[in-house]
Amino acid sequence: MQFLRVTLGDRSYPIHIGTGLLADAAMYAPHVASRSVALITNKVVAPLYLERVQGALQQAGARVAPILIDDGEAAKAWASLDHVMGAMLAARCGRDSVIVALGGGVVGDLAGFAAAVYQRGIGFIQVPTTLLAQVDSSVGGKTAINHARGKNMIGAFHQPLAVIADVSTLDTLPDRELRAGMAEVIKHGFILDLDFVGWLEANIGKLLGRDRDALSHAVRRSCELKAQVVVADERETGLRAILNFGHTFGHAIETGVGYGNWLHGEAVATGMVMAAELSARVGTLGRDDAARVKALIERAGLPVRGPALPVEKYLELMQVDKKAAGGKLRFILLDGLGRAVLRGNLAADLVRESIAASAP
Amino acid sequence: MQFLRVTLGDRSYPIHIGTGLLADAAMYAPHVASRSVALITNKVVAPLYLERVQGALQQAGARVAPILIDDGEAAKAWASLDHVMGAMLAARCGRDSVIVALGGGVVGDLAGFAAAVYQRGIGFIQVPTTLLAQVDSSVGGKTAINHARGKNMIGAFHQPLAVIADVSTLDTLPDRELRAGMAEVIKHGFILDLDFVGWLEANIGKLLGRDRDALSHAVRRSCELKAQVVVADERETGLRAILNFGHTFGHAIETGVGYGNWLHGEAVATGMVMAAELSARVGTLGRDDAARVKALIERAGLPVRGPALPVEKYLELMQVDKKAAGGKLRFILLDGLGRAVLRGNLAADLVRESIAASAP
Repeated sequence: MQFLRVTLGDRSYPIHIGTGLLADAAMYAPHVASRSVALITNKVVAPLYLERVQGALQQAGARVAPILIDDGEAAKAWASLDHVMGAMLAARCGRDSVIVALGGGVVGDLAGFAAAVYQRGIGFIQVPTTLLAQVDSSVGGKTAINHARGKNMIGAFHQPLAVIADVSTLDTLPDRELRAGMAEVIKHGFILDLDFVGWLEANIGKLLGRDRDALSHAVRRSCELKAQVVVADERETGLRAILNFGHTFGHAIETGVGYGNWLHGEAVATGMVMAAELSARVGTLGRDDAARVKALIERAGLPVRGPALPVEKYLELMQVDKKAAGGKLRFILLDGLGRAVLRGNLAADLVRESIAASAP
Repeated sequence: MQFLRVTLGDRSYPIHIGTGLLADAAMYAPHVASRSVALITNKVVAPLYLERVQGALQQAGARVAPILIDDGEAAKAWASLDHVMGAMLAARCGRDSVIVALGGGVVGDLAGFAAAVYQRGIGFIQVPTTLLAQVDSSVGGKTAINHARGKNMIGAFHQPLAVIADVSTLDTLPDRELRAGMAEVIKHGFILDLDFVGWLEANIGKLLGRDRDALSHAVRRSCELKAQVVVADERETGLRAILNFGHTFGHAIETGVGYGNWLHGEAVATGMVMAAELSARVGTLGRDDAARVKALIERAGLPVRGPALPVEKYLELMQVDKKAAGGKLRFILLDGLGRAVLRGNLAADLVRESIAASAP
């Protein structure tokens, strides 16, 4: 088992990474003994892991109320939140209750936001069961639901009490979701760690083949890199924005094709190709390195071309993105491979050309 | 003009109290210059003050998007929040935008919660226009909407950037709302300041007659007392609970008769009579002082008897109240007049008798 700590003062928390952890009562006991727990998961994850997690929680001394939501991005909505809140009130959960989020990014984002706002805030534990959630969404305290006009527009920064990443859950993950999660792993290399990019290029085959040692290393290094950034800038007032590399384009893709048609990681993958292209056009990234970005994404089985939307539609969708300050477009660019930089006031034509270069 | 400061580290903020403040651009300028502002108010307040506040904000250099919600407690709901979020996204509000809450407690609670969760949190300014909001809900950072199963069940602690309490707005306040606000003023005396109770007993006539000097003093002293408690316990882990004196019974009344039939202050007034009765039965408050509590509430024109609900219905409604820890009933009692104390594990029969003594 591996162990990391995200050091954020009185909001510090551990990340446990290993196999078989989700059924281990000792993981939960410090946080849930003698408390009521709302165990939130979805209808796909429940048959696989609900019983084991519920048993471990009960063994740790908790009273457990399981709450099921629908699968997929559409569940990150008010209707699900209202359902969760109602079920928790019916179960008499109070301010000392704890939410356990068992599932992927959607479950984690929704359950985390429920914890942020239930009776003005209670504790929660992330038990991520997808690669995306293990390396990205479960770490850092970002929680949210979607609004009809934009993704993640209603949310809160709310750090978990603990993250329990059981890599054996990746065995049951569909290939497409494994690849989508790999997009965020690769992103952490591109923006922060050239050595890790080299390691990924050498091991991408093993990772897609689900070699457990390779996956454990990738999850651990990703969490470490992300945690460094979160510790330096918890509420995204500066540095943390670099984690959004590829996301401005990516969110435009997700919104443009309708949530759920492209997976988040797929949209980010293509978004990174566009952002690398933009970096090359702005002059902060060499053509060779931009090609390296695209090649690794392609080898990971991820899309490198955007959906068939007019370029102006992309621009329109990006204007309302959260990363737009005062209406001006800002982008995270690569300043060489393994280093990211935030740039504002970019010429719209450079952005148009970068989209066109990667759109069908 | 009077000025207080709520000292909460990097979440500290000023409270300005005076006449004509809401039309003064200098009040807003430090927070809104060159920013977009979502000015949230309701359909009753808008004809009275919207134009003046909007003008002052524009003079202070803000781009202003007015957003109207319905009047009344029913507006503290998801539908209103969704409407506000949609209007802010349509107006291209970003993370540097500011919300201005112009109105009473409902507007402040809803707009404050919108600020807490819009794009994971933006700043907001409270411009309370009712006595209740000026002396209570605008100070302390509690924000929330209601759930069908309980009041204020979905919310956040989110401190404002500033509170601008213009007491001249009380001129247009209906008598019933003025009295309801007085309940919280009186509460601050009961729980924290015996001298202030004496002052209120001597000046209740002037206050109900809207004597401006008396009202200014009452608002200022109330804010001071509340701010002391908030500074000592921002997130209600201990001391702050005393501000809920009368509220456990009060929330049961509000929920039992349906939100909006009793005003919050009216329910709290009767709740305080019940809590004083309970204090007398437990033995922490003399019978004379319990009579003094009831007499002042009655002289303020507030109800001292609860609605015709079965006693068991009260108990049932109190179980799901946020103040219930681990399913056990806790109450704020008076430990002599001017001092409050939190007591857990009270015998249910004492609670029943206290309700029965004040129910019709």
